Amino acid sequence: MSGADATATDADAHDADAEYTAGVIGGTGFAGGELLRLLAGHPDFSIVQATSRSAANKTVGSVHPNLRSLDLRFTEPSDLESVDVLFAATPHGVSMERIDAYFEAADTVVDLSADFRLPSAELYDEWYEGHDAPEYLERAEYALPELNRENLAGADLIAGGGCNATATILGLKPLVDEGILGPETGEVVVDVKVGSSEGGAGGGAASSHPERSGVVRPYAPISHRHEAEIGAYLGLDVSFTVHAVDMVRGASATCHVFPDGPVSKGDLWGAYRGAYEDEPFMRLVSGGGGVYRYPEPKAVAGTNAGEVGFELDASNKRVVVFSAIDNMMKGSAGQAVHAANVALGLEETAGLEFQGLHPVGSP
Amino acid sequence: MSGADATATDADAHDADAEYTAGVIGGTGFAGGELLRLLAGHPDFSIVQATSRSAANKTVGSVHPNLRSLDLRFTEPSDLESVDVLFAATPHGVSMERIDAYFEAADTVVDLSADFRLPSAELYDEWYEGHDAPEYLERAEYALPELNRENLAGADLIAGGGCNATATILGLKPLVDEGILGPETGEVVVDVKVGSSEGGAGGGAASSHPERSGVVRPYAPISHRHEAEIGAYLGLDVSFTVHAVDMVRGASATCHVFPDGPVSKGDLWGAYRGAYEDEPFMRLVSGGGGVYRYPEPKAVAGTNAGEVGFELDASNKRVVVFSAIDNMMKGSAGQAVHAANVALGLEETAGLEFQGLHPVGSP
Amino acid sequence: MSGADATATDADAHDADAEYTAGVIGGTGFAGGELLRLLAGHPDFSIVQATSRSAANKTVGSVHPNLRSLDLRFTEPSDLESVDVLFAATPHGVSMERIDAYFEAADTVVDLSADFRLPSAELYDEWYEGHDAPEYLERAEYALPELNRENLAGADLIAGGGCNATATILGLKPLVDEGILGPETGEVVVDVKVGSSEGGAGGGAASSHPERSGVVRPYAPISHRHEAEIGAYLGLDVSFTVHAVDMVRGASATCHVFPDGPVSKGDLWGAYRGAYEDEPFMRLVSGGGGVYRYPEPKAVAGTNAGEVGFELDASNKRVVVFSAIDNMMKGSAGQAVHAANVALGLEETAGLEFQGLHPVGSP
Amino acid sequence: MSGADATATDADAHDADAEYTAGVIGGTGFAGGELLRLLAGHPDFSIVQATSRSAANKTVGSVHPNLRSLDLRFTEPSDLESVDVLFAATPHGVSMERIDAYFEAADTVVDLSADFRLPSAELYDEWYEGHDAPEYLERAEYALPELNRENLAGADLIAGGGCNATATILGLKPLVDEGILGPETGEVVVDVKVGSSEGGAGGGAASSHPERSGVVRPYAPISHRHEAEIGAYLGLDVSFTVHAVDMVRGASATCHVFPDGPVSKGDLWGAYRGAYEDEPFMRLVSGGGGVYRYPEPKAVAGTNAGEVGFELDASNKRVVVFSAIDNMMKGSAGQAVHAANVALGLEETAGLEFQGLHPVGSP
Repeated sequence: MSGADATATDADAHDADAEYTAGVIGGTGFAGGELLRLLAGHPDFSIVQATSRSAANKTVGSVHPNLRSLDLRFTEPSDLESVDVLFAATPHGVSMERIDAYFEAADTVVDLSADFRLPSAELYDEWYEGHDAPEYLERAEYALPELNRENLAGADLIAGGGCNATATILGLKPLVDEGILGPETGEVVVDVKVGSSEGGAGGGAASSHPERSGVVRPYAPISHRHEAEIGAYLGLDVSFTVHAVDMVRGASATCHVFPDGPVSKGDLWGAYRGAYEDEPFMRLVSGGGGVYRYPEPKAVAGTNAGEVGFELDASNKRVVVFSAIDNMMKGSAGQAVHAANVALGLEETAGLEFQGLHPVGSP
Repeated sequence: MSGADATATDADAHDADAEYTAGVIGGTGFAGGELLRLLAGHPDFSIVQATSRSAANKTVGSVHPNLRSLDLRFTEPSDLESVDVLFAATPHGVSMERIDAYFEAADTVVDLSADFRLPSAELYDEWYEGHDAPEYLERAEYALPELNRENLAGADLIAGGGCNATATILGLKPLVDEGILGPETGEVVVDVKVGSSEGGAGGGAASSHPERSGVVRPYAPISHRHEAEIGAYLGLDVSFTVHAVDMVRGASATCHVFPDGPVSKGDLWGAYRGAYEDEPFMRLVSGGGGVYRYPEPKAVAGTNAGEVGFELDASNKRVVVFSAIDNMMKGSAGQAVHAANVALGLEETAGLEFQGLHPVGSP
Repeated sequence: MSGADATATDADAHDADAEYTAGVIGGTGFAGGELLRLLAGHPDFSIVQATSRSAANKTVGSVHPNLRSLDLRFTEPSDLESVDVLFAATPHGVSMERIDAYFEAADTVVDLSADFRLPSAELYDEWYEGHDAPEYLERAEYALPELNRENLAGADLIAGGGCNATATILGLKPLVDEGILGPETGEVVVDVKVGSSEGGAGGGAASSHPERSGVVRPYAPISHRHEAEIGAYLGLDVSFTVHAVDMVRGASATCHVFPDGPVSKGDLWGAYRGAYEDEPFMRLVSGGGGVYRYPEPKAVAGTNAGEVGFELDASNKRVVVFSAIDNMMKGSAGQAVHAANVALGLEETAGLEFQGLHPVGSP
Repeated sequence: MSGADATATDADAHDADAEYTAGVIGGTGFAGGELLRLLAGHPDFSIVQATSRSAANKTVGSVHPNLRSLDLRFTEPSDLESVDVLFAATPHGVSMERIDAYFEAADTVVDLSADFRLPSAELYDEWYEGHDAPEYLERAEYALPELNRENLAGADLIAGGGCNATATILGLKPLVDEGILGPETGEVVVDVKVGSSEGGAGGGAASSHPERSGVVRPYAPISHRHEAEIGAYLGLDVSFTVHAVDMVRGASATCHVFPDGPVSKGDLWGAYRGAYEDEPFMRLVSGGGGVYRYPEPKAVAGTNAGEVGFELDASNKRVVVFSAIDNMMKGSAGQAVHAANVALGLEETAGLEFQGLHPVGSP
């Protein structure tokens, strides 16, 4: 038995056999909770510390009910313990202020905010506001192994991608790699649908259940900041629109693409197979029978998997690409753990083995 | 009191003061149920008959629980009573077979299926299969008053539009009217999100609650038949993709439009105001504060209202148009009653006064 | 056309033909919004004023998107205009402070809070805190016409019932009237399931969409204040537990009742028919075929209907009673308008004719 | 990469290092899919066969999209391969017909249907219909380790409990063990709320998304067959009512209990701690702060955990007990694997380590 009153525990935060120690900054947020879940189940990490300003001294399970069995209490973020790897899951702007302190406490820093995910201060200024620690921007490696595996090996500052950008990049990268898409080709329209967890644990009036249930709500019709990442890492200007729909987890990007010349289904299968056949977390889902014939957030909920698929609209030479991830996992905490595995030379799938559920509602 | 055991009734199907008699073919389907609700509350119609193959002799309320107070039983579809207006809400293909019988029973026929909504047999053959009664195609008037009000006046065969086409046409028509969009301008990507009621009362494995809950599912990635209507009535080829999302009612079309030349926000406001300022059911919703800043299906659920709005993406000259309707109402039964009101010269809003609910979940 | 930028309007707040003027205090809340919807469509009321502290000078439609066509702006609550009937939909505690001012502005006051719904200051003190205007408690009439129609006629202070209490009272009253249930009979367990709108427009962490979606959450396991009303008006002590479930509107009370002696199905049908056969809003739903065989909140969503039904568990002499209402309507704003209709001698169903929707999701 | 077109695979159905071979009968159902997920991740089992009448020769992933990476195809159920443990997840009635064939193929049979879960043919006849293989009833052991751990060790026929019975038994057993509840004490009302997965993969009209969304639907008001298990294994007659609510996974039992004499909170804490302090899957959740203060299906979704908690309603001496499980896991497939672990002497938590998600919607 475990719980609020538990003295025993079955989930093991402090794993004496683990090779690496880890800390989590911002452990009460949704991404922080997922980091704690993943690290607690990771064979190579022992969690030394989880910080929270609002819930210091409370158990992790009092905030994240799935972790009621975890024997760990939040501590104040001001007192960082020494760890091998520090994961930061704070709101945008916090990590750039504290990055020096992070590196005093840890050899490797994995930051899930937007603070280090753009490659230059200029680009950062264009989409956000002034950067407090621009000297770290070049040092940071974008956390998506499917895009940046080689540079992640041995990296000491890892910057997690935005969830909507991640879904889009995973969907379009194979077309860019094969030259089917590029700066010179036609319009790229990316129409994204996301769940309510993207708004974070805080929420506001628009996130309250009566207002947020059942929506198809254009919440970022234009000028979404994740366009900056897509431009920086794919070299594409995309027309990007994000809608809130009624699910908690998940990001689904539908990319409407107009290549310059003729493209065949074979070209497309070749591009996607070539890009992802050795990727442990990528699934190519396109057609076939049954209920689940294309990528769907439901099918990957709770997992680090990414699904991509496509159709070719012969009449007007459009390729429609579908890409689905769990925004909290492949789009945030899972991506961060995957990148840390790559950086440290661990098994890439370590701690990320959960296969997801069927059936599952609005996960 | 009323109900399964009721002898009294408070909703009045047979309204002796009403000017017109009405019949509903296919009354057990979702659109048929909405027709019965609307006609029962309509001051100018008295319901004489509601047919159903599967539920003959059962009360309407045994199928549509909101109509438990309605004193009306389904009858076999083979015996049609004489009425002024016959509304047909059967699956595609039924009305074209029975259209002569319909006109023997009624002066005016309003068909909600796809059977008469395309203007020529050639176009019908291209998107569906062979037409059994092509001689009626030219006689039929497309039911959308915002597009076709003049021709609807006095029409005796009215063909309801497809719900996704309706949302798209309402969103793009002002731009076409103003020449901002046309056959010569750039790509038009229409990304539609629809609720589960679009699949009808039958449903299948994909519509079962465990599989359908929480989805973002590409169910018509390409080649959706509603493209034909958009082409026929707007003169536009659109790149059209439909997703199932977790709501029951609603269709939301996001149209990504790339005009040839520069367009200003003022041009856009002008186009939409010009098109809709005298329309009783259209609302222009664009920006402003609060939670509901753009069109949303929730805001029109249960009503015949249509909401349209837009944003201008200056950097790449994209206009993003949002259009939201209740697919069962403005996209089906409400549109049909509105068209009948126009055809008969009644008050356009008669029977369609319901203002919708707030808050409302997944209506 | 209407909307944020509308100059014209199709919904008529100010109805010159209406017999009575009305004001709404607390118009930004969910109940306030429903009052505005109902009164705008009511043939006998013209809305003179809607107040809001937080949204003064904003349009009603900027808060309640279904009312975007309503030509009305919120005003400060400090300046009350003279009206015939003042509806107050403020949080508990406000009306008891301002009740004298209300009566200076209006002849009739209908209060939807808990402030006047208990018959004595002693009982109020037991369940809430001290009452500021106990002299009004006896003057106030409980708003449920099915319970209190005679006293409501001509009443000038009307106190709306609690939504959970209303569902329970409607379910159990016929059994009390027939002596099947009473203070001397056995346990009465009432297990209520409610939607998120019951938490109001404010909400908190527990009401945020990620936390509130998909819940079966005991939010008032014991000691819910609505027990006081049930005791006061039915003379029953009930064991009362309220759960939050995933819907926005609706309250469903399942009452497990153990009469002292043998009861037959005929007795039960007799009790319910006797109680409700002349009630315009009550439906008796028990058994029969199809999907909707018992009372369900979905079937009454948006309406002022109440559904009750029952089963008899022969083996252990338990009667299970089901009662379903829309908590915002029969449980709040609809009940208030119904009571005002009775008080003023109007048609009881005036303004409350909406029949609800099918299909409908989580309304 | 993996998927419909995958040649490689990352999830390992055939695990050469595993000690035991396993087969799954009825692999296309929801419980069958969960068995396949759990066994594929179980260190001690290698899946040799998964049968399906409807999907023979198709990949497991074509039915269960979370298992798209699993390299396994369904086979016809008529050809059973020899395995150590055979898990049967077929509809009620199938296993009792085929039980001899099962034992020809396997040493140990774990049946998830109702066929062997009651201890006598008489009791079976009372609640179901005639039993085809009554000689196995005594041999079968009820699969719930918290109730029956000692007898499960070494058992060769294991009968999975019903999900609603499991939730109820877990909630009430500590009170029965301590004599707080018994055949002589007062009424026990059990009000259960379940998700749509309980209806299975087939579904019908009542399970279609438009009808099933947002419901609070009494689907088994009286005479639910799970009462038989509760009577047989707890010795209690309970008044049992089951409601469908809007979630996919989960069963939540609220038990309203009226002990004969006075009970203190300390007695209750003592009873629950005593019963469950050594149980690896049980969590005692009662009070405390935050959003999740009582058992909730969301908090255990996807896991084999069971949560129980309680409140004491001093005024009327009622104890309200809350019990929450995932009906597909602790209420079905997880319970089966847990029981098999106990029967074979494996680590009890093997293959059942997943900790669940936060946030999660309607899992």
